[in-house]
Amino acid sequence: MADSRPVVAIVGAGFGGLRAAQALSRAPVKVVLVDRRNYHLFQPLLYQVATAGLAPGEIAYPVRAILRNQRNLEFRLAEVTGVELTEGRLITSTGTVDYDYLILAFGAETNYYGLESIAVHSFGLKDLDDAVAIRNHVLRMFELAAQEGNPEIRQAMLTFAVVGGGPTGVESAGALAELTRLAQLKDFAELNPKDLRVILLEASDRLLAGMPETLREATAETLWRKHVEVRFGATVTDFNGRELFLKSGEVIPARTLIWAAGARTVRLANSLGVVQSSLGRVVVAPTLQLPAYPKVYTIGDAAYWEIDGEPLPMVAPVAVQQANIAAGNIIRALGGKPPEEFEYRNPGSLATIGRNAAVVQLGRFHFRGFLGWLIWLTIHLMRLVGFRNRLMVLIDWAWDYFFYDRAVRVIMPEGRWPWTTGNEQNSGTPERDGLYRGQ
Amino acid sequence: MADSRPVVAIVGAGFGGLRAAQALSRAPVKVVLVDRRNYHLFQPLLYQVATAGLAPGEIAYPVRAILRNQRNLEFRLAEVTGVELTEGRLITSTGTVDYDYLILAFGAETNYYGLESIAVHSFGLKDLDDAVAIRNHVLRMFELAAQEGNPEIRQAMLTFAVVGGGPTGVESAGALAELTRLAQLKDFAELNPKDLRVILLEASDRLLAGMPETLREATAETLWRKHVEVRFGATVTDFNGRELFLKSGEVIPARTLIWAAGARTVRLANSLGVVQSSLGRVVVAPTLQLPAYPKVYTIGDAAYWEIDGEPLPMVAPVAVQQANIAAGNIIRALGGKPPEEFEYRNPGSLATIGRNAAVVQLGRFHFRGFLGWLIWLTIHLMRLVGFRNRLMVLIDWAWDYFFYDRAVRVIMPEGRWPWTTGNEQNSGTPERDGLYRGQ
Repeated sequence: MADSRPVVAIVGAGFGGLRAAQALSRAPVKVVLVDRRNYHLFQPLLYQVATAGLAPGEIAYPVRAILRNQRNLEFRLAEVTGVELTEGRLITSTGTVDYDYLILAFGAETNYYGLESIAVHSFGLKDLDDAVAIRNHVLRMFELAAQEGNPEIRQAMLTFAVVGGGPTGVESAGALAELTRLAQLKDFAELNPKDLRVILLEASDRLLAGMPETLREATAETLWRKHVEVRFGATVTDFNGRELFLKSGEVIPARTLIWAAGARTVRLANSLGVVQSSLGRVVVAPTLQLPAYPKVYTIGDAAYWEIDGEPLPMVAPVAVQQANIAAGNIIRALGGKPPEEFEYRNPGSLATIGRNAAVVQLGRFHFRGFLGWLIWLTIHLMRLVGFRNRLMVLIDWAWDYFFYDRAVRVIMPEGRWPWTTGNEQNSGTPERDGLYRGQ
Repeated sequence: MADSRPVVAIVGAGFGGLRAAQALSRAPVKVVLVDRRNYHLFQPLLYQVATAGLAPGEIAYPVRAILRNQRNLEFRLAEVTGVELTEGRLITSTGTVDYDYLILAFGAETNYYGLESIAVHSFGLKDLDDAVAIRNHVLRMFELAAQEGNPEIRQAMLTFAVVGGGPTGVESAGALAELTRLAQLKDFAELNPKDLRVILLEASDRLLAGMPETLREATAETLWRKHVEVRFGATVTDFNGRELFLKSGEVIPARTLIWAAGARTVRLANSLGVVQSSLGRVVVAPTLQLPAYPKVYTIGDAAYWEIDGEPLPMVAPVAVQQANIAAGNIIRALGGKPPEEFEYRNPGSLATIGRNAAVVQLGRFHFRGFLGWLIWLTIHLMRLVGFRNRLMVLIDWAWDYFFYDRAVRVIMPEGRWPWTTGNEQNSGTPERDGLYRGQ
């Protein structure tokens, strides 16, 4: 057929981009979905890869396999390096894509707020390479500590700090505590459990700020029970790979810092020449269009949207709901109808703290402890893409639960993807090289 | 207790090193096992990781977890950089280890026979990083081919060459044919199946040289049925990442070359200053001792041993049987008894060619086709370490078998381990960078 269908380009195959593509499956358009990864990542479980509970492949699913039956879709593995908004053209690492409509769903990356030394020495947790790097590093610290004669260095090797009391920080700290105390110590009889520290540092006076107070308190209490030192009012000012500096003047010797203190849109947003709000997010009209380019929509972490003066959080439900509106508005535009405005329906929020413990807020209903944990498990299993992945995750969770073990405690290949443009801030390897020689 | 037990150091936690450690579990010695990986790798299934059938973690198991209950064992994650044979000391990346007895089980690496350009541009298949690099590269070639306008470049991107008609080459070629034809093409409707080539290049006139003739013929026939071009008398002289050069003058445009044409001992062997035979293997006495250093044993791929003028193959059964003898001889030496001599009992050999097809030779018995395949499956599942890994592999195989799909078709983080000394020949990334821009 002569392809005269309008082209809808979508940048990013995260929760938003994928949903937008699916919402356009029956529209009279050609969808071109561009991502620099060949998989859709189930980010909510990323911290479990970082803490050796799940294998990377269990939370990643090939985009092509997900959208195999969608006839009007073309997938392109490429890095988008620029957008020519006036011409309607994407510049990518493998060539250009001319579009009639565009949905920007490029998501967010770790935000170090300009703290260069922290960016170099700490670990973000936004993609699989981050997670594998953290897993490798934590496992390696145990191996090196076991061979370390100097007790101070050994303690620093066994001190794992997490910055940020949001869901990622809380979940990472809880999972780290269990990985280190329950699984690793079984295999390191030569180490003293008293040398082990997991510290969660939060600048404000609360964890999981969006949650009701009872659940926030339960979260801190549960973390303490798991031997996580929860420190409030603790602002991290620097980290050199060996010492962590707090604003109070305190210095904590530590070889591991997981930076879960912030996110911002990926750099591509800055090159668009459009109005950006806090964290680099692109300011959109109520219809999710760019005010100056009505054929361009921005959704998810990339888009700035306020409710009662507060920006929407960077979470999957926002991206999915916005994807439906953006895709719907393109279909409406093709049919000559006016666009709809986006309204956010908050489905609630949930976070797990470890075995038998999660906090869940669904509208008026609050759950915690074992029941919260079961709800958390069920929701995450259901949302995972692919039967094989669900089955594997279930087995790994059962393994973990019944044997107090972690399924994937192997130090694996890691590093950059060779075909990325190298604009990532933290490659996770070379600067740390000295740390792995036992100095 | 004052530790006056003699120290047995073991270099390498492959089939030989691991077995030797276990055989010493009740001996009155302290065992120090050193490996630069924290896992034992089940190498016979490595090609399945390279062809997206299995996840890396499914064939790797932490050494510490395997040997958790062995009280007299200490594991060290370190790279052995030298051996001072006269002093009885290992030099490692994390310090030195003084030993009374030593078992060298450091194994083999890919042998490029000095062909520098091939070493840089092709893929070996000896460890997990190789396997992940191959998987990523093959998947990436499909993605780039789908975006490639030039039909000649597209064909080169879809041409996958394997060099070497031994078990690794045969199994890789068969698995590649199934990955590309059965799984990948389902997701690449835009590609023409006729552009796809899998070529197996063998310099001699036979595949699986150690097998009986009927099985050798069946192997070639089965590969042909799977659309693998089997080329005999084809000697590869060069590969520049874009073209493959044969001795005959033929030039095959191809972007992928898997080099399964040879192995040699790791470089450490060359630094020992002892007698080496072909492929760098260390020549041992019939008791597996080094003639000049009777407290030092060498086993497995690292050791040279002849039967009827032929060196023993670099396979797991040899390593395991030698490990038992070496460990036993150390125990005998401690008890003042004379050492035993090694005698090889050949348990047979087997290779799989793909779904429903394997060739198996067990003593006088030969099997092929579906029955051979079932025997192959059973033996490999039984030998895998760890219940979780067995279960996961079984699920992935079933997935593959019933859905004609591959479980792990995601392009993942790859690269060097940050703490290796960098003496690997092929990092698998930087030189190929140009290939991934679609030139």
